[in-house]
This record gives sequence, structure tokens and C-alpha cells, in this order.
Amino acid sequence: MSKWVRAHTNIALIKYWGKEDEEFIIPKNNSLSLTLDAFYTDTRVTFDSSLKEDQLILDGEEQDASALKKVSTILDIVRNKAELTDYALVESINYVPTAAGLASSASGLAALAGAANEASELNLSAQELSRLARRGSGSASRSIYGGFVEWEKGINDETSFAHPIDNANWDIGMLFIIVKQAKKEVSSRDGMQRTVTTSPFYAGWLSTLDQDLTDMKLSIAEQNIDKVGAIAERNALKMHATTLGAQPPFTYWTADSMIAMDAVRKLRKENYSVYFTMDAGPNVKVICKQSEMDKIKKALLAYFDEEQIISAKPGPGIQVLENR
Amino acid sequence: MSKWVRAHTNIALIKYWGKEDEEFIIPKNNSLSLTLDAFYTDTRVTFDSSLKEDQLILDGEEQDASALKKVSTILDIVRNKAELTDYALVESINYVPTAAGLASSASGLAALAGAANEASELNLSAQELSRLARRGSGSASRSIYGGFVEWEKGINDETSFAHPIDNANWDIGMLFIIVKQAKKEVSSRDGMQRTVTTSPFYAGWLSTLDQDLTDMKLSIAEQNIDKVGAIAERNALKMHATTLGAQPPFTYWTADSMIAMDAVRKLRKENYSVYFTMDAGPNVKVICKQSEMDKIKKALLAYFDEEQIISAKPGPGIQVLENR
Repeated sequence: MSKWVRAHTNIALIKYWGKEDEEFIIPKNNSLSLTLDAFYTDTRVTFDSSLKEDQLILDGEEQDASALKKVSTILDIVRNKAELTDYALVESINYVPTAAGLASSASGLAALAGAANEASELNLSAQELSRLARRGSGSASRSIYGGFVEWEKGINDETSFAHPIDNANWDIGMLFIIVKQAKKEVSSRDGMQRTVTTSPFYAGWLSTLDQDLTDMKLSIAEQNIDKVGAIAERNALKMHATTLGAQPPFTYWTADSMIAMDAVRKLRKENYSVYFTMDAGPNVKVICKQSEMDKIKKALLAYFDEEQIISAKPGPGIQVLENR
Repeated sequence: MSKWVRAHTNIALIKYWGKEDEEFIIPKNNSLSLTLDAFYTDTRVTFDSSLKEDQLILDGEEQDASALKKVSTILDIVRNKAELTDYALVESINYVPTAAGLASSASGLAALAGAANEASELNLSAQELSRLARRGSGSASRSIYGGFVEWEKGINDETSFAHPIDNANWDIGMLFIIVKQAKKEVSSRDGMQRTVTTSPFYAGWLSTLDQDLTDMKLSIAEQNIDKVGAIAERNALKMHATTLGAQPPFTYWTADSMIAMDAVRKLRKENYSVYFTMDAGPNVKVICKQSEMDKIKKALLAYFDEEQIISAKPGPGIQVLENR
């Protein structure tokens, strides 16, 4: 029996937004993230000669062909490398608070890459795992590592992978504000593609990323939360600006997102070290000091319910679970 | 006694956002607006040798030196041209619903240009009035004319002025949603300057304007509200995107603005011809058919109070009031 593998989600502080190569998922720019402990996926892969196709059981429910697509991309690469021909059973459990509405593709595809590695006995290095996870979902390449992680865009399959840059063992954390407003979303995949193709702001976005990355890495080295937060916030705002110029225009923001962003700005005026970032959805992630997290959560209760606010600390990289 | 002059406000469908020349207010791009009947300013200028400085009485209250600055800019030009040396009394009344929070600089400075023309007996042409009003406030150059108006950016004081392009005598109108949320605003003057100077998106904004203008003028000629509205909406979203890239970033949007924009998108799915635009503030202007305005206003009452929604129809150009 092969082993279960756990991978945690990560939130980008310098966003991945646009592909240079759609098939191999080579990004347009380097991105930089923080892996978090609060959300993770456990996955086990079992190659089985009796199966007639790959099978994915997620949280106890068998998934259809569309959900299998990214999974089979990774399994095919592993089968090819390991010279295996069997289809696989993939069992996967998402540890994400119910209704959080948080994308689980980063932790999910990273855990799958790790679990497929175990099942195939390929014994891939972390760098190879990062490349493998990337083929399922770009952001999954970063969830192989804990703490602060940079995904180097590279120029092809061999050179595009993540590496750890800081273990985040200092006073930084994140609060997830899960907004209530449902919104029919443009997927991150479709959103970035439409933006790259049609937004007059895409070139401007790319032009500022070297500076943001350089500033961010210096600020992480200084363990300076105010610099880290401010750079992450300005980077997120730029990413979201690009969508407003797409044809047709779109936004991931809702009224609740604005309330959350305004609340963060207000807390900042009260001298908390608090900043926000947002991804391809309406939820708002609040970057703050772990040591101030309880106070900030309490202040946010003026705007949101208790169950809408989830605390997270820096999390570890991918783990093979000996007992589960 | 010189005559009172009335000028109406206008809302840009292709936004003016950035100056090429700060002193003469030469814009970076042509803009295009609709003059509206709902908001206007009445102004009278009296040159008076007994005055020791220019004096502005707005809605019955004497204004301080800072409010006088733009006014004196226009009065100085007129005095210079007419070889007058007297200071002037400027009486001005803004017909803007209380607490509407709508900038009155377009109607205000246009009315002042017209009133100063009357008082000085300079007998300026409409084109000269547009240039004169521009010196007080860029958008005021457009309020000299009724209906749809284009402000040609030109290259200097002599060549930068507005001209009418369509009397808007067809089925189009505007609903103003006055949001409750107060927000300490970045003035439009400071906002556009910060954006021009620091936003990586400013070049992208400018690069799309020729297309937006061409499309808009064709759509106005076709009297096609859906095209006019869609172009105006995409243009406004692009303008607001540019502010998110400024350093420091800023936005004029509030949670209520998002509610209004989402409400408009929802009504559009219900097959109303309804679109939005926004300026340097949180209020949302809804472009729609005059014939559907009552129904749309009723639908918007699900989100806003009656007094927050103001109906407007296309308005006339500057008028000298024979009796007031």
C-alpha cells in the first residue's frame, strides 16, 4: 500500500497571473508565496491493474471526467517516467473549512504529485516534484515547500520550478476573510488568459514585477512585515486592475471584498501592521503579525461573522504521512 | 447689471484622466460627455471698482481664498482680454440636490466663463467660452454645449476646446446613484496627476482611447444605447484600473459602489439596456433608456433609498438667463 501525502495551500504575495506556455504551464513571471498551515490536502495514489481508467475520489465522492483532467495529466507523466501502464485510484481529502470557497488546486495538485511519486517509487527530488505539480496547476509548484517560496518562471519544463527562500519562522501570519457573497467566478485559468490576450494593462503589470520581487525578497530577509505587506498589497491591486481592462472586463471583487479591504486600511490607520491580498475570487487574505492576529480578528468581527475569519500560520512543505 | 448665466453639468463617457499641461489644462486625451439637465449652476459676475479683491458668494455664503483660486484664474483672463482692472463680485447658485456629493466644477466654471463674458461684454464665441472654461476646470470646457460633446485635446491653449457632436435627442438618460458611504477622496486633480506620474497602467489606458472614441462616435451616430453604454462602461473601468497601480495605490470605489455596479450588471441580464460609469468619487451613474428609467429606478430601490437615485435627461448648453 502506498503512502498518504499531505500538501498545504499557499497564497501568493507576488501573483502568478498569465501563462507563457499553456500546455506546460510556464508562467509569464516569477511569483512568490507563503505556504500556510490552515488548509491542506491528503492524497494517496494506488496503481491498480484492474482499473479501466483513472479514478478520483475526493472527500469520499467519486469525481467526473472533468475533475480528472488535471489529475490524469500528472499521472500520465509519472506513468511515462516510471514505465507503468496501470490506471490509478486517487483518494483525496481536502482539509478546508466548509464553505470557505477557497481554491484547493495548489494543495491538491501538490499532494497528488507527492502521492504519485510514492506510489510509483520514482523517488523524485523536491525540485522534480515542483515541476510535476506545476503541470497540474501552476500554483501547486509552490506548495511543495513550506514558508516563503519563489516560483522561478524559467523558460521551459526543465527550468520552471519553485524553491524555498525563507522558513517564515518569524512574526507573520494570515487571516482569511471568507466573504458571504456568492459570485459566479471567472476561473483563474480563464481570467488570466483573457487578461493576457486582451488587457491593455498586462504589459504594465509585467513591467513592475522585477521591482516588486526584488523589494519583496529584501523585505523578507529583513523580516519586515510592513514592507512585505505593503508590497503584497500593491501587487495584488495591480493584478486585479488588469482584469478591468480585459475584453469583456471582469472583476473578482464584490461589495464584501471592498468592506474587507476598507477594514484593513482602517486598522492600518490604527497602527496595526495589516495588509491585504486577493486572488481569483472575492475572499480577502489579511497579512499581519501572528502576535496581533487575535486583536485583528476581534476588530474584524465588527464587519464579519466569527466563522468567516480563519487564522493561519506559516505551514510546512509536502509531507509523507507514516501513519494515517 | 450683467446677466445671470446657467450651465449644466456633464458626465464623461470617455473620461478625461490626466493633463499634458498643468497650467493651461491641456489634457492627455480627447474626452466625450453627455450634458445633463438635472444639475446646473447659475452665476452672475459684476465688475466693481469698489472691490479690493475678487469675491465669490456661493449659495449665499462667502467663500475663502482657496475656493477663489480657479475663479480668479478665469476672471484674470477676461480682465486681460477686455482691458478691465476692476475686481469682480461672483454670485453663484448650485442646483445640486443636497448631499449629492457631486462635483459641481464642470457646471460651475462653465457658468462662470459665460457670466464673465456677459459682464465684460467680450462677446466670446462658444469655442472661446469653452477654452476659457477649460482654464478653470478641464471638464467645464464640455459644459458649454448640450447633448454629446467632445473635448479635443489639442496641443495648446488655442487648440484645446470642446465641440458638440449630437444633440442627444433620442432615447437615452442617466440615473445618478448617490452612495451613502462617505470616503475621504483623492481629488480628481490629485488623482489623475498621481496616476500619470506613477501608474504602470497609464500608457495602456491612453493606448485604447482612439478605439473607444471612434467606437463611441459611431455608436452615438447609430443612436445605439447598448453600444454607447458598453463602451462607456469599459472606458470607466479602465480609468479606475489605472488608480490601482498608482504609488501609493488608491481607489474611488466603496462597497456601495460595488453594490451599484453589480445591480446594473444584474439588470442587464434581465435585458434592460443599462450600463454604468464612475468618476473621481464613489457615486455611480447609470446610463439607460429614458423610456426604461422609471422601471430601472424602481428595480434599484431594492438596493438604495429613493432619495439616493436621481433621474437626469440630456441637458442644454450654456444659457444667458433673460429673467431670473
